Amino acid sequence: MKERETLRINGLGHLEIGGCDTVDLARKYGTPLYVMDEAYIRKVARGYTEIMTSGSGDGLICFASKAFSVKAIYDICKSEGLGSDVVSGCELLTALDGGMDADKIYFHGNNKSPFELELAIKNGVHAIVVDSFFEMDVIESLCASSGKKIKVLVRVNPGIDAHTHHFIQTTRVDSKFGFSIADGTAIEAIKSVAQRPHIEFIGIHCHIGSQIFELKPFELAVEKMTDFILTIKKETGLKVAELNMGGGYGVTYTEEDKPLKPEEYVKAIVAKLNECIDVKEIEKPRLILEPGRSIVGEAGITLYTVGAIKEIKGIKKYVSVDGGMFENPRYALYEAKYEAVLAGRMRDEKTETVTVAGKCCESGDMLVVDAKLPCARSGDLMAVLTTGAYNYSMASNYNRNPVPPVVLVNDGKSDYIVKPQTYEDIMSRDVYPFWSQRNK
Amino acid sequence: MKERETLRINGLGHLEIGGCDTVDLARKYGTPLYVMDEAYIRKVARGYTEIMTSGSGDGLICFASKAFSVKAIYDICKSEGLGSDVVSGCELLTALDGGMDADKIYFHGNNKSPFELELAIKNGVHAIVVDSFFEMDVIESLCASSGKKIKVLVRVNPGIDAHTHHFIQTTRVDSKFGFSIADGTAIEAIKSVAQRPHIEFIGIHCHIGSQIFELKPFELAVEKMTDFILTIKKETGLKVAELNMGGGYGVTYTEEDKPLKPEEYVKAIVAKLNECIDVKEIEKPRLILEPGRSIVGEAGITLYTVGAIKEIKGIKKYVSVDGGMFENPRYALYEAKYEAVLAGRMRDEKTETVTVAGKCCESGDMLVVDAKLPCARSGDLMAVLTTGAYNYSMASNYNRNPVPPVVLVNDGKSDYIVKPQTYEDIMSRDVYPFWSQRNK
Repeated sequence: MKERETLRINGLGHLEIGGCDTVDLARKYGTPLYVMDEAYIRKVARGYTEIMTSGSGDGLICFASKAFSVKAIYDICKSEGLGSDVVSGCELLTALDGGMDADKIYFHGNNKSPFELELAIKNGVHAIVVDSFFEMDVIESLCASSGKKIKVLVRVNPGIDAHTHHFIQTTRVDSKFGFSIADGTAIEAIKSVAQRPHIEFIGIHCHIGSQIFELKPFELAVEKMTDFILTIKKETGLKVAELNMGGGYGVTYTEEDKPLKPEEYVKAIVAKLNECIDVKEIEKPRLILEPGRSIVGEAGITLYTVGAIKEIKGIKKYVSVDGGMFENPRYALYEAKYEAVLAGRMRDEKTETVTVAGKCCESGDMLVVDAKLPCARSGDLMAVLTTGAYNYSMASNYNRNPVPPVVLVNDGKSDYIVKPQTYEDIMSRDVYPFWSQRNK
Repeated sequence: MKERETLRINGLGHLEIGGCDTVDLARKYGTPLYVMDEAYIRKVARGYTEIMTSGSGDGLICFASKAFSVKAIYDICKSEGLGSDVVSGCELLTALDGGMDADKIYFHGNNKSPFELELAIKNGVHAIVVDSFFEMDVIESLCASSGKKIKVLVRVNPGIDAHTHHFIQTTRVDSKFGFSIADGTAIEAIKSVAQRPHIEFIGIHCHIGSQIFELKPFELAVEKMTDFILTIKKETGLKVAELNMGGGYGVTYTEEDKPLKPEEYVKAIVAKLNECIDVKEIEKPRLILEPGRSIVGEAGITLYTVGAIKEIKGIKKYVSVDGGMFENPRYALYEAKYEAVLAGRMRDEKTETVTVAGKCCESGDMLVVDAKLPCARSGDLMAVLTTGAYNYSMASNYNRNPVPPVVLVNDGKSDYIVKPQTYEDIMSRDVYPFWSQRNK
């Protein structure tokens, strides 16, 4: 385990996070339990904003909501000077309720509904990131009928497709998102935007991938995007006031992952942009970055209680916990790797390799394959690390399991930021049709 | 599309289900919308129970809740004489609320919590299907302290692993579920159960896989399980009063799938069991079957509105709809295949092959890859077929999208069985920690 200031082993040999002993947290709140470390979130956010506001001083970091969209997280992000990107009507309302300023919100998505677009316009988001010609029509029509004007960025594909450990450059981008620069649809999209009286073109956006460990793909993307800024100027005379480079900075899930420090990504992008601006003699656009996973991912851990343990002779040992794919579907979806520890026995020698299974009635319901652990016993407290991103936000009620609550920890304090879901909550929308005898 | 009595093309060229025009349903309830066909559910359930109750007359069909656990579905299943299997505390309470008799409920799961086991015992379920030695300890202790006795089946692995289109026979079963017959743990488990004063051993259970299209693996499983009944008798003298053979009968998702008629599976299992009983001279156990997907899968369709359409020259055409992996994660999880139709243009010629994408901010968010459709236009109504199982039950709020409502249709009538989820519902558990300024 990668220890850090607030994630450490305490004197009792227990895992501690945000100054709270995880054994105490489990006793107080029960398991399964998502735990989020406020200090870590603030540290990463602050590291980013410091780079963005030094020098030029006008960049903006927007928290990518989809990683973890709950009110208290926006509250923290806002207080660190962040904006946010949202991808749905409810993410937008949650961000606003969480205190986020509308003029620091970007609305993304390949297929925003007319209702969501109306909500974005009505609430005065800073900009909508347009993703299709159909969407331009809808926005123009909504704005025309309400007499409003809206700023937009156009999502483009620079031809770089980057994911963990590798990336490719291509002119033929197969994606449901954005407009390709290489095949001419991106410039066509910008021309189309510019013709619409209620839409103001202010910039371009790209997002090249997720969980990226190298600087090279980001630098290349800046090259391509600044080249495209030149193209836009030449072909349309339009100014690109904002360059939104998305996110995608990798985090550590297991010891195999060797990401750079969070701020290294931002530093490299800022440096490359400054270089390109000088060389290409373009007017400096405001830089927007949208990290999500890197802000909340490592900040989160999930606590479980070990239940059934089953050794299949000569094959495998299964250690089942009280969570599973309903609260962390990332193994089921991507065969994602995680590190598990026995949170109450951190100094015990790791003597065996086991598979940590969930409680869902599905053979693929695993959390950690090949976890190295001390010999686990039923009742042990387990923690899975780096669960702050895309766990709560992807949670379901599969098997009618309740979504676990989320507790925020800081400086020895702990409190809910998402309250427990009850069985009654899950059943609350179940009704009988009017012709059922159950209504009689 | 495989038409049937209640899923047909009407005179307007629209898709009709349960006597309701899907264009009208979309207008009345909005999209995305899950639609369930009551008549189809009843037809399949009735077909099963007729076979089970003919001849011997004492078999039981239990609806496998995990496919679709909502109150109204239990109401329908109960009225057709079905019991149900449940795999969590909330599935149990939903089944009971839906009118299901406790003495027709089986409680499954590889890692039931002590709380769930207590709930099962307190509510008097017919039997708990024991899955580990740890669970036996918990059950015995709970029953001892409450002075109750509980019937159990023991989940065993007969060494047959069957999934779509193929199956294997093995003595080394790698599964988090059950006890292997071949390596002796199954008989050991039964002996252990028999020693516990508050637990009554009444039978054995197996589940060999999902979405199976052949009879052979089921027949082999019956062979293995009846052999094991002989072993149990010989080694322990215990009577196996119940043989629970699980489920796994395949359904049609696309034209590539060629399952047998639902009742063929049940017929074959019943016939094989009768044969084995005669040949092996064993006392006839009560047969329990637990179909889930085959009862509700084809009964369900999902309605969508087409939004953004994007053609990437030389690569692909994306047709985006207002749903996605939040309401049907099966492509993201398993690359599951589905059939899509334009529900308002059923007689239009299918002229193109497109990818139907969801609205989630994730490149893997697809619903149907290579869908053959008439040239789709934004605003068209789309239906994806066979979404009755493992869609609503696996739905999440990813991207804070609301889980769509479920409407039941029958004989021209329609009504909610799951009400719409609002943005307020999604945000309802979000709170601020006591130290946040937001509380001031």
